[in-house]
Formats: sequence, C-alpha cells, structure tokens
Amino acid sequence: MHDITQRVEILCQQARQGARALARSSGAMRNQALTTMADTLLARSDDLQTHNQRDLANAEKNGLSAAMVDRLRLTEARIRDMADGLRQVVALPDPVGEITEMRTRPNGLRVGRMRMPLGVIGIIYESRPNVTADAAGLCIKSGNAIILRGGSEAFYSNQAIAACLGAGLAAAGLPEEAIRFIDTTDRAAVGALLRSDRYVDVIIPRGGKELISRIMAESHIPVIKHLDGICHVFVDRSADPVMAEAVVFNSKMQRTGVCNAAETLLIHQDIAASFLPMMAKRLVAAGCELRGCPETQRILAGSVPVTPATAQDWDTEHLAAILSVRVVATMTAALEHIEAHASRHTEVILTRDHARAMRFLQEVDSSAVMVNASSRFNDGFQFGLGAEMGISTDKLHVRGPVGLEGLTSLKYIVLGDGQLRQ
Amino acid sequence: MHDITQRVEILCQQARQGARALARSSGAMRNQALTTMADTLLARSDDLQTHNQRDLANAEKNGLSAAMVDRLRLTEARIRDMADGLRQVVALPDPVGEITEMRTRPNGLRVGRMRMPLGVIGIIYESRPNVTADAAGLCIKSGNAIILRGGSEAFYSNQAIAACLGAGLAAAGLPEEAIRFIDTTDRAAVGALLRSDRYVDVIIPRGGKELISRIMAESHIPVIKHLDGICHVFVDRSADPVMAEAVVFNSKMQRTGVCNAAETLLIHQDIAASFLPMMAKRLVAAGCELRGCPETQRILAGSVPVTPATAQDWDTEHLAAILSVRVVATMTAALEHIEAHASRHTEVILTRDHARAMRFLQEVDSSAVMVNASSRFNDGFQFGLGAEMGISTDKLHVRGPVGLEGLTSLKYIVLGDGQLRQ
Repeated sequence: MHDITQRVEILCQQARQGARALARSSGAMRNQALTTMADTLLARSDDLQTHNQRDLANAEKNGLSAAMVDRLRLTEARIRDMADGLRQVVALPDPVGEITEMRTRPNGLRVGRMRMPLGVIGIIYESRPNVTADAAGLCIKSGNAIILRGGSEAFYSNQAIAACLGAGLAAAGLPEEAIRFIDTTDRAAVGALLRSDRYVDVIIPRGGKELISRIMAESHIPVIKHLDGICHVFVDRSADPVMAEAVVFNSKMQRTGVCNAAETLLIHQDIAASFLPMMAKRLVAAGCELRGCPETQRILAGSVPVTPATAQDWDTEHLAAILSVRVVATMTAALEHIEAHASRHTEVILTRDHARAMRFLQEVDSSAVMVNASSRFNDGFQFGLGAEMGISTDKLHVRGPVGLEGLTSLKYIVLGDGQLRQ
Repeated sequence: MHDITQRVEILCQQARQGARALARSSGAMRNQALTTMADTLLARSDDLQTHNQRDLANAEKNGLSAAMVDRLRLTEARIRDMADGLRQVVALPDPVGEITEMRTRPNGLRVGRMRMPLGVIGIIYESRPNVTADAAGLCIKSGNAIILRGGSEAFYSNQAIAACLGAGLAAAGLPEEAIRFIDTTDRAAVGALLRSDRYVDVIIPRGGKELISRIMAESHIPVIKHLDGICHVFVDRSADPVMAEAVVFNSKMQRTGVCNAAETLLIHQDIAASFLPMMAKRLVAAGCELRGCPETQRILAGSVPVTPATAQDWDTEHLAAILSVRVVATMTAALEHIEAHASRHTEVILTRDHARAMRFLQEVDSSAVMVNASSRFNDGFQFGLGAEMGISTDKLHVRGPVGLEGLTSLKYIVLGDGQLRQ
C-alpha cells in the first residue's frame, strides 16, 4: 500500500516535469509526436494483438460477458482506427498560445488572454483500450502531460499502447515522462492518484456511473465529468409532426447505449392525441418499450403496449430501447419536469414557434440545448471540435463535449512600457 | 447542530428557487434591483450605522485590534461607496444570454454557445461588511442567486445590508430568495453550506489563508479561490534600469498588504551590480526590509542592511514591507525559481529584449503574466472588467480577476430544421 502510493507519486512528479517541457514545445513537435505514435501503433499491430490476447484470456477466465470481451478486443481495424484518430488530432489547429481579447487600457497597458495547457491530466478509464491513445492524443496536442490509469481487464493492451505513445514522444524529442502509465492493477493506485493534488491539475474519468461517483467522492483534485445522460425531447404543440417523429425516433433509437440518447419524451397535451399514436407505433415496431404516464396510457390504450411509468423511470438513464413518455399540460410543465429530472446533458424542443424556441434555449440549463435536432448531435465530432474526451455536465470550466479547448485555460497577459499603479 | 444543518439546507433550497426565477429575468429587471439596492443603502444609512455599532461594541469587548475594528466600521462615506459600487455594476453590459461562436455545420445545423449564470453561489467571507453588497451586486447582475455567510464579527452589519439588498430584489419584482443570508454565527453553518452540493454550484471564499484552506479541505462543492499571492518581479539583464526601479518599487510598495504586491525580486546577474544598489537604497529609504541571497548580501554589503534570506522566505507571502531578493545566473534560473515558488498569481518581467519577453509570457503559468508593468495591475478594475469578486489562482474555469464573466459559463445551443444523426 505504502509502496504503491510512493510509486504513483513518482509517476505524478515525472508527469509534472514532462508538462513543463511540453509547455515549452512547439505545436510542430507535438504534431510530430502524434504522427509517430500513429505510425508506431500500426508498425506494432501484431505485437499489440499478442498483448491483447493476454487480456482476452483473462477476461474469459474471469467470466466477462461476450459484450465486454468484444469491447476489449484489439483487431487490426481497431488499431488502424486509433492511428487514424491520432492523425485527425494532428490536423486540428494548435490551441496553445492563442491570444484573445487583447485590448488597450486608458493608461496604454495592453491586457489580453493567452490559452495555456492545464498541466497534468489524470485519466481514469475502463474497458476499451483505444481510450489510451485517444486521450493521450488530445492531451499531448494541447500541451498537457497525462497519467493513464486504465481498467485492470485491459492492462496488457493499455501498457503496450502506452509504450507506442512513449516512442512517439521520444522520436519527436519530447520527454517520455509526459505520458505516464500506472503499471499496477492495484486499486490503491487510484486513491493515490486522486490524492496527488500537488502534481495533477485535473482528473477526467471515463467509465460507468459507479466509477465516476467513487472518483467524485474521493478526489482532492478537480474532476471534469458527466455522471449520466437523462436527455429529454419535448414535442411542443406547434411541432411539425413529421419532423418531430423523425427526430424523436433518431434521438432514442439511432443508438440506445449512449449518453446523448433520449430517455424521456415530453409531449404537449394539445398535440398528444394526434402525435402520440403514430410515434408510439413506430417506436414499438422498432422494439422500443414505452413507459407512460396515465394520460399516455389512456391515449395509447388498445393500440400498443405501454408499461405504467414509475416515479423512478423519470430519473433513470435506461441506456436501452426504453422510453419514458409523459403528456404535459403546458410548456412550463415541460420545463419544470426537465428542471427536476434532467441530468443537464442534452435537451431538445421540437417547435415551429420562434418565441417558444427562444424560451427553451434560454431557460433550459443543460450542456447542450437544441431546437429541432436530434439529441444524438451532442458530440465533439458533430459539433466540429474534431475529437472529444467525453461530455461534461459540470457547470464550471467546460460544458458539453470536451475538446482541445476544454483541456486548456486562459491566463491574463499584460504588455506595458513601465506603467505604475496610482 | 441538526437544526442548523436543516436551516442552512432550507436557505440553499430557497436560493435554488430564486436562481430559477433569476434565470428567466431580464437584464433590465436585474439592473433595477441593483439600483434600488443602492438607493436603499443610502436611505437606511443611519440604520446601518446603528447596527454596525453593535458589531463595533462586540469587537472592542472581544479585544479586536484597532486595524480590525477600523475595517469593520461603516461610515457614511463607506456606505456611499457600497452604493456607488452597485451603480457601477449596473453600468456594465449584461453577460447573460450572450451568444458566441455560432457556426453552421455541413449538415446545416447551427452550433454555438450561450452564456448562462452558474446558478447558486455561496460566498464565505470575513470582516469587511462591504463584501455583502459587492458580492451580491455581481452575482445578481450575472443572474446568480447568492448565499452569504459573513464573519461573526460583522454579523449585525451584514444582516442589515442584506435586508437592503432584499428590498431591492422585491422592488424589481424579483424573488427575495435570490439573496439568502445565513442568520446564525454558529460555525456549523459553514460545514452545512459546504455539503449543500445539491443546491449550490460554486463556493467563493474571501478571507485569510486559514479560512480558504479549511474551505478547500471541507467543501463538496467546486471552489473558486486564491490561496496566496507570492508574486515575482524578474529584472532581466536587458531591463531599462530607470523603468525597472519604478516598476519594482511600485509592485512592492504602492500597497503592501495586498495579494498582487511583489514578494520576491529576481535579478539577472549581469545587471545586479549596477541595478541592485540604487534599487535597494530606494526601497530601504521607504522602510522596506530586504531579505537577500548570498550574492545580494555581497553586492549590498556596507550600503544598506540586508537580512539573510531563509529557505522559507522564498515561499512566504509577507503582506508587508519586506522583499526577498535573489540574484540569478540566467533567465532559465529565474523561470525555475518561479516554477518552484510562485503561487501562480502574478509574475512580471522587466526587459527590452522581445524574445525574452515572449518566452516569459509563454512559459510562466500564472493568472497574470506581465511585461514591463507593475504587478499591482492584476485587478478587475485595472483590467477593465468593471468589478471583481477576487482573483483566482485556480487553473480551471477562471484565472485572474473574477468578474461577471467568471460567474457564468457557456452551454452549447443548437438550431436545426430536423437534422438526424446518420
């Protein structure tokens, strides 16, 4: 236990030193590192798959589900995807050193802001080994050192990928210390990392709700996270019914196991009787279970099966083909439902009424608020950020997809010619 | 204890409800509230001074220092200053609802960001009663509800000021719940506030290092803070000596008890022998104590008194007319000293060399990094923010002076016409 704390502390110290060197590096050097990381992943494809076999063998021995085993598997195609992901990050503009808002004060002082790396970022993640490369690519591009703590089930795969990343740093003349891999599966290492506030600037967890809750409770370091995605689609009385049907269906069913999928459908009572039957029919035909409020049950009685919604359903991220459905008397009631139950992730209104669209945009306080578009668009690639580390439902620092900008912050810079305070 | 927890929880719940109403309010209503707050403070000036007398009497009974008692005192002039401060905030542009970076994606989706209040802000502060009005003004202007927890020594003054603020909200048709004053001096109330993460979005402490350390250790809510200001001025070999002397003197002596005053002077060895004697003479003549490295002691031997600097001096915020002085062999050594000892508040370089000015700006990672200007300019008014809640030395969310923008964050907004995810 003591040894592990010490070992993690040394890794964190090394990362801090790596961060200093990165802060001085040029964008060209960081891009060169990412390019070489991609090349190395491809060149060592067979080797990576060999290490991955050890994780797969353990997974089967430990009785992991077929789905879990599949998520762990590194195929040639998945290794190519990791390399492609790194090259996409290379193509993004360098966020570091950007100077904005430079204004001249009455005394001639020029005051502006410069974008800087956060410093050292600790990533605690589960399962998919590709996170190792994806997260490191974004961190290095934005000038941050990174400490990687992957799940024990992908230990050998992650370690082999991290070695490729280190080779990329070295080839570009950057310190390998800028990427540190926690090379033990002991859970005490996570606690030690969360206490390393002297060296680590921010923790970004990627994984299930249980992992994230534990990290939030234990961390002495600021955490950028989303806990869950209880996303709402509100079909207003003035919605275009054809558009609404398509957007609701896409929000719920395009992919069900993801955080930006809709979990609750709210329908204005003026449109419910005409809209709900056709919407419900399409959803049920596609295998979606409906959990409805009493009014929903009444409207759909005899047409499609509806499970009565429990109080718990309104607060549940189903992550499956299940949709909670509620008829509301007014837009205010819809906003109150969202205020009470949303996880501040993604909320959508379908409406043709401009004033109500504007009201929804202003009053709903979620990481992304949308008018007439699928909730599935709350995503770094879809928003044009190029790549993302996940979606933040926090209010401070960064909300929504966390791209390169979310891994930086702005310091003030001041240029004078001898100004003195009076 | 249980009662206090419950009482604080109710106040926090009320503030959360107030925040919802504020989020729907117009900037004109919020300005109207601030204007009436200012009017009410002036109209009740005598009443405020009567309440203040109770605090002053307690202070003397409890043996507070004359300086502490003076800080507590509400005079007519100080009440007018509070009112003027609120009117200055009225004059600032409304930050809420600002839409930026609206761009059109290839599929026609418009994606941008909208500035939103953080929600409920808890302010924990000591001593000066004017913080009650200053903090509430900035929070209400930016659409945030506020929970005020002042020091027990200013309890009656703060309570009377808070009543004036509530009157302003009510007169503008805004809910008085948007400003909640914790009406007990029991210290358990602070703990209860720091655990109210269900209702409170951020804590901003204003006070001494001890208060802030305690809050950081105890809080379950994100904290925006600065712990201390160990600010460095580096006189490079190419500095203009006349400008450098004026800027160093101003940085240290213009006001010594503040966080943006210089604590350490670093001098390049090539300029030390010519620059240091005249600089030291001026500082000592003004009553400043020097704590020097061996080389500083050698250069100044026989001219002015120099106390040998201890290892602890480099890490001390003197907040007094004391300056730690160190001669460094290279700019790199200066940067390393700053990296090791700075509190990431304000660092200044004096130089005529453009490349070295740029290197300092890029490599020093503090809330404000300055070239050829006094460290005392790191201040919301001086930077043109209009007013400030304090200076953040955090890396996430906001660095430097926390003005209206620091009390808001950006959510994504998406405008579509039925786009679906492929």
